[in-house]
Amino acid sequence: MKLKELADKLGAKLDPPDAEAEITGVGPIESAVPGQVTFIANSKYAALANTTRASALIVDEKFTAAGKPLLRIRNTQYAYARAVELLHPPLREQCTIHPTAVIDPSSQIGANASIGAYVVIGPRVEIGEGCTLMPHVVIYRGVKIGRNFFAHSHVSVREDCEIGDKGDWYKIPQTGKVVIEDHVEIQANCCIDRASLAETRIGRNTKIDNLTHVAHNCTVEENSMLCAQVGLAGSTEIGKNVILAGQVGVAGHCKIGDGTIVTAQSGTHGDIPAGSMVSGSPAFDHKQWLRSVTAFTRLPELARAIRGKTGKE
Amino acid sequence: MKLKELADKLGAKLDPPDAEAEITGVGPIESAVPGQVTFIANSKYAALANTTRASALIVDEKFTAAGKPLLRIRNTQYAYARAVELLHPPLREQCTIHPTAVIDPSSQIGANASIGAYVVIGPRVEIGEGCTLMPHVVIYRGVKIGRNFFAHSHVSVREDCEIGDKGDWYKIPQTGKVVIEDHVEIQANCCIDRASLAETRIGRNTKIDNLTHVAHNCTVEENSMLCAQVGLAGSTEIGKNVILAGQVGVAGHCKIGDGTIVTAQSGTHGDIPAGSMVSGSPAFDHKQWLRSVTAFTRLPELARAIRGKTGKE
Amino acid sequence: MKLKELADKLGAKLDPPDAEAEITGVGPIESAVPGQVTFIANSKYAALANTTRASALIVDEKFTAAGKPLLRIRNTQYAYARAVELLHPPLREQCTIHPTAVIDPSSQIGANASIGAYVVIGPRVEIGEGCTLMPHVVIYRGVKIGRNFFAHSHVSVREDCEIGDKGDWYKIPQTGKVVIEDHVEIQANCCIDRASLAETRIGRNTKIDNLTHVAHNCTVEENSMLCAQVGLAGSTEIGKNVILAGQVGVAGHCKIGDGTIVTAQSGTHGDIPAGSMVSGSPAFDHKQWLRSVTAFTRLPELARAIRGKTGKE
Repeated sequence: MKLKELADKLGAKLDPPDAEAEITGVGPIESAVPGQVTFIANSKYAALANTTRASALIVDEKFTAAGKPLLRIRNTQYAYARAVELLHPPLREQCTIHPTAVIDPSSQIGANASIGAYVVIGPRVEIGEGCTLMPHVVIYRGVKIGRNFFAHSHVSVREDCEIGDKGDWYKIPQTGKVVIEDHVEIQANCCIDRASLAETRIGRNTKIDNLTHVAHNCTVEENSMLCAQVGLAGSTEIGKNVILAGQVGVAGHCKIGDGTIVTAQSGTHGDIPAGSMVSGSPAFDHKQWLRSVTAFTRLPELARAIRGKTGKE
Repeated sequence: MKLKELADKLGAKLDPPDAEAEITGVGPIESAVPGQVTFIANSKYAALANTTRASALIVDEKFTAAGKPLLRIRNTQYAYARAVELLHPPLREQCTIHPTAVIDPSSQIGANASIGAYVVIGPRVEIGEGCTLMPHVVIYRGVKIGRNFFAHSHVSVREDCEIGDKGDWYKIPQTGKVVIEDHVEIQANCCIDRASLAETRIGRNTKIDNLTHVAHNCTVEENSMLCAQVGLAGSTEIGKNVILAGQVGVAGHCKIGDGTIVTAQSGTHGDIPAGSMVSGSPAFDHKQWLRSVTAFTRLPELARAIRGKTGKE
Repeated sequence: MKLKELADKLGAKLDPPDAEAEITGVGPIESAVPGQVTFIANSKYAALANTTRASALIVDEKFTAAGKPLLRIRNTQYAYARAVELLHPPLREQCTIHPTAVIDPSSQIGANASIGAYVVIGPRVEIGEGCTLMPHVVIYRGVKIGRNFFAHSHVSVREDCEIGDKGDWYKIPQTGKVVIEDHVEIQANCCIDRASLAETRIGRNTKIDNLTHVAHNCTVEENSMLCAQVGLAGSTEIGKNVILAGQVGVAGHCKIGDGTIVTAQSGTHGDIPAGSMVSGSPAFDHKQWLRSVTAFTRLPELARAIRGKTGKE
């Protein structure tokens, strides 16, 4: 899309007015490539405008840095979301019902439905207009669903359940991707969320056990191991050779240094330096934690001892 | 089904003997609608018999409240389970093998099988009589399964595994439903269990992240957020605008008040008043918890200090 | 396979050279049956060589026990892995694309692909050579995948994601199985891992709730209950009538005795005697834990009281 056309569609003022570029997508300011547009939320990030490789910037009306074509608009956040939508078409492209879909004749599907290959819809189902059922969705008998329902592959909706309407409010699309490097193993029922922009990345040789959750924008480097039922909150960075034992939780926007071991069921809140071994929720040094949990089992006796000395009841 | 017919099938005594009603289902005493039968476990709930909208009541032989047709029987719990079974036919309705099922010719499937659309059964599989495979079940090669096996959509059984017989003991059917209100988002691999009767309900605008478990009969009200890997035990009520952070667990039959925040990995045991912020497992006031966990890291030194003063080793 | 042929393929020295046996598989030394080969890592396990029912033993060059045909080789671990591979053929048997697979014509699939029934591949997908897509795999549009990709049934890869190459390093195959005894119920999205050899076993009448993880080689005996989101690490033994409440974690290689109750979110590290009720992470006696957590909420005051008496700040 031409930059001029994008400016018109966003209702933004192009500066300089004769700037030209072919825009192919939206990217985050640090990693955008030529051909992408990015945005600057406020003047605090003005310095990045000088280093980004993006071909154009969405900025507010008072933004003063230069050197790149600018799309000036009051609500930059909304313009950004709109640009994502314009440049990254959603999954739902056409209203078709795949010939392999098995739909019970007693079911009613509203207008403008998009129904993928091998979808199965049981008897007496009612679905409102504008639904998107990706391939392999199964809807059991008697289900009632409202307008604009979207179900991804392998979703099951069990018999007689009810689902309301979706979809008339404004949401920032998630258009990044997931990158799985070589020799990664991901076991059953894991969820690796795509990035909002850019990517969620799982590094070479990393192993991820069952039922683990990796939120959007996380990075896990090489040779790390995420045991079963681990959960990583958004934008967390896990270094190389890290072991997160079973059921560990890691808070968002934190860095876990190379070679760190977090023992089972622990939860980390904040950065962890490389080579650490931590335990507990919140987690701290493992050896110290071992002493603390030992003392914890005797805590009532300690409390009694104090009361005996202080005379408090 | 006529009330008289239901009484006969349950082996219950109809009181009055000439009572008439068309019974279409079973409902919980608080929310049953006309046409439904409900039951009263013991006389403590006799008052509810006066307010329920149900058309008939299953009660024990000594029950004395009136105003509704009664089905008198010694074992009300069993009669209720039987009534559910009679009035809510199970999923398995007919013994057919869908023409799209791909079954390897070297596999043996017992009599009375019900095999849904797009089921795939690999080589050398043996399945006993009476199996129900819902659409999209995949059985890998060499699997051996006993009688009355039931697998829901998207179940996979991996190669060479063995599964025994199922199904000759008595279980109270779960016949309620799940209601998802408008604008709810449910991410990947979540499990929302249907109610035993009545409903499990997820309120408007509520967001549920990956791998979350919502047990039967829970209610989550509007605008709440359940982060990844949260677990709610049965019959719990979550208010409006509640945030349950990652890996939180909530015990059953509790109320979490509006606007409550439960921080990551915490576990609540009991009701939480509206507007609370709680942490820990078991959870208590967040600020107090912060002080306690700080003291916890120094617990061994505290213990030593006490021993020093008291002369204990 | 003849024992002589196996020795040749492994590069092992057969002792005695004229030993004969028909070998049908590999088994663990304690439970191998006639017709299976097993291996002895070092002379510490020599005694077991006298009691195993295996038909032959893979041993190192200096091994001295006798009475069974021996396959002598320097690297017994590697020879064992190779024997597993030779005797337990992998899932991928032939390079075929099932006629029911729906592959968008704009996608490119490399040579030697094995694509199962009902696989769906969207537009503009690129997959390298040697991929195995088991039945019901769904690949969304624009995905890029390297060589030797293996995806099990019901895996989804979302749009525009990238996956690297797999598969040129040496891994010990997991060739055991899962045995589910009679009347077991396993709820949605659980993962029961197969054993590396022998079996992972779930005993009669045991119930397993949603999103639970049972690692390889675990045994759960009769009538136990694993509530939602429980995780068992590898080779753990759970006795009869055990209750593991929601989100409990159990460390690997431990025994949980009959009738034990582990309360919600607790984590056990080590064996637990029969009839226990334990809580906390790490878990200890439930009643003592109740007193400790009560004292924990008052820990800052206790710390202040100590400082008051000891004069420390």
